Amino acid sequence: MKMLINVPETVVPDALRGFAAVHTDLTVDVERRVIVRRGAPYDGQVGLVSGGGSGHEPLHGGFVGRGMLTAACPGEVFTSPVPDQMVRAAAAVDSGAGVLFIVKNYTGDVLNFDMAAELAEDEGVQVAKVLVNDDVAVTDSLYTAGRRGTGATLFVEKLAGAAADEGAPLDRVAAIAHQVNEVSRSFGVALSACSTPSKGGPTFDLPEGELELGVGIHGEPGRERRAMMTSGEIADVAVDAVVEDLRPDAPVLLLVNGMGATPLLELYGFAAEVHRVLAARKVAVARTLVGNYVTSLDMAGASVTICQADEELLRLWDAPVSTPALRWGC
Amino acid sequence: MKMLINVPETVVPDALRGFAAVHTDLTVDVERRVIVRRGAPYDGQVGLVSGGGSGHEPLHGGFVGRGMLTAACPGEVFTSPVPDQMVRAAAAVDSGAGVLFIVKNYTGDVLNFDMAAELAEDEGVQVAKVLVNDDVAVTDSLYTAGRRGTGATLFVEKLAGAAADEGAPLDRVAAIAHQVNEVSRSFGVALSACSTPSKGGPTFDLPEGELELGVGIHGEPGRERRAMMTSGEIADVAVDAVVEDLRPDAPVLLLVNGMGATPLLELYGFAAEVHRVLAARKVAVARTLVGNYVTSLDMAGASVTICQADEELLRLWDAPVSTPALRWGC
Repeated sequence: MKMLINVPETVVPDALRGFAAVHTDLTVDVERRVIVRRGAPYDGQVGLVSGGGSGHEPLHGGFVGRGMLTAACPGEVFTSPVPDQMVRAAAAVDSGAGVLFIVKNYTGDVLNFDMAAELAEDEGVQVAKVLVNDDVAVTDSLYTAGRRGTGATLFVEKLAGAAADEGAPLDRVAAIAHQVNEVSRSFGVALSACSTPSKGGPTFDLPEGELELGVGIHGEPGRERRAMMTSGEIADVAVDAVVEDLRPDAPVLLLVNGMGATPLLELYGFAAEVHRVLAARKVAVARTLVGNYVTSLDMAGASVTICQADEELLRLWDAPVSTPALRWGC
Repeated sequence: MKMLINVPETVVPDALRGFAAVHTDLTVDVERRVIVRRGAPYDGQVGLVSGGGSGHEPLHGGFVGRGMLTAACPGEVFTSPVPDQMVRAAAAVDSGAGVLFIVKNYTGDVLNFDMAAELAEDEGVQVAKVLVNDDVAVTDSLYTAGRRGTGATLFVEKLAGAAADEGAPLDRVAAIAHQVNEVSRSFGVALSACSTPSKGGPTFDLPEGELELGVGIHGEPGRERRAMMTSGEIADVAVDAVVEDLRPDAPVLLLVNGMGATPLLELYGFAAEVHRVLAARKVAVARTLVGNYVTSLDMAGASVTICQADEELLRLWDAPVSTPALRWGC
């Protein structure tokens, strides 16, 4: 497997050096692996900190900036960051208004963010946490007890970030984050495995002519393997899975997310099919985002995330955001 | 080769249906394959029309909107759009101030845009054209007499689009477009071949352990094949190629572009190496864009484009833009 890298051991710091060179409006501590919005802490504003294994870019570093995350902690590829990163991030972004940790539900992340929260509180930082567990495909999986956290992370970070940007207090920002997770559901599909730099090849075996329904963002097993399906058939399965589980009674925010290697041309065609199935299920779509936002390195495939949006969430979605990967209104 | 599609024959219209469903601020004629900025024509503003084969997304449809293209004409995958699309687009965006055709240098595109220009002028639309030919890898290639048009297209569309947005007349908008092309250079590298829907598999053969230096955006042959290189070694070759050819004496705009399947994690690491080589060559970087902007379906690899920017081009780069794929300042 050919990769555009130097050596597997330096993939994450190499990427952080690039991130620092390109995004000069962010503060990137390459050695300690913390990305912070320049100017933080912001007086009276709750700080939002997230992080997780690398390989899901632009998540999370690409979402640091006004109206979204205040800091991100990248771990090694598909490996949780360590508590020290999170504690540093919390200290860097706390204005006294407290910090919200946004944690995807993987055992390593959960343990490390828990430990970091204790350490940060020992240092006088008030910490709230939200656990993102939106993936309806399976309960309990490789790396995870309960449901995995995937695409809804983007919605949690954007909507809670908008509330923080408006000066909402910690309990309100945390309540919005919890609400967003409660009303969000995801389902992913893999057409090919992903390859990690350390392994140098595919992390699992997906035979030619088959796909994996309900795959995780590290290539964890999903619900089942089937013979290759059309875009329309895949949309039927993915949308049914999220709609059956959530049963939305209001318009949704929709993320049609690429896993990494699927061309945008295909993603837009898939988005058309997802819209078709949602319309047939009488689910109105308020906003749609199409692109590679929560990826699995070079995996081919896509995921669908819906988030039921009341007036307030819709307003927060439309609020200004200025990050490397998501930007509007400012 | 597994693809997220229905059938190969409907890949482009399927994608356009998705594009129409998602980008409700654009007018998408799925049947006639023309994407137009809503509200066009804009009084007194020059219209910018581009187009080309599909498979390079977000180019060009993703660049329609305020401060960039007024319309785009997508062809079949890796196939020029037809003159009828361009004539319709020109008629839709002409406010009386004229229209600029932005044409990548591939024989089919050149012939069809030439014919469309004649037809549009017969209908009373004043048309200027700019030919983008920034790829320094080879002269004459599959599909192309002279140099191929690649990453500089983004710079031409953004900078000429900003001038049009400010109300510059056609001769000025065209002059900026020509200037941008003159001071831009690109060089691309493939780590894997791309697969077209019609072929259903790789369009060329790139053995394991080898890369193609100077590849074209349709997988056309480049300068040479070599045993796999590190990210740093690739940056040395790519940056040397563009700097030797342009010999910039002012800061540059830099595009570190993914071909489609290369993870963003790798692209940022590559961006760090590109910055390193440019610094060693005493070339200052004014702005950098990293991401998948001018792609080759699911090809793994990257390209480097530099554009020497005087004060005026820098100002136009920073001017507001609001399109699906590029957005800031508004």
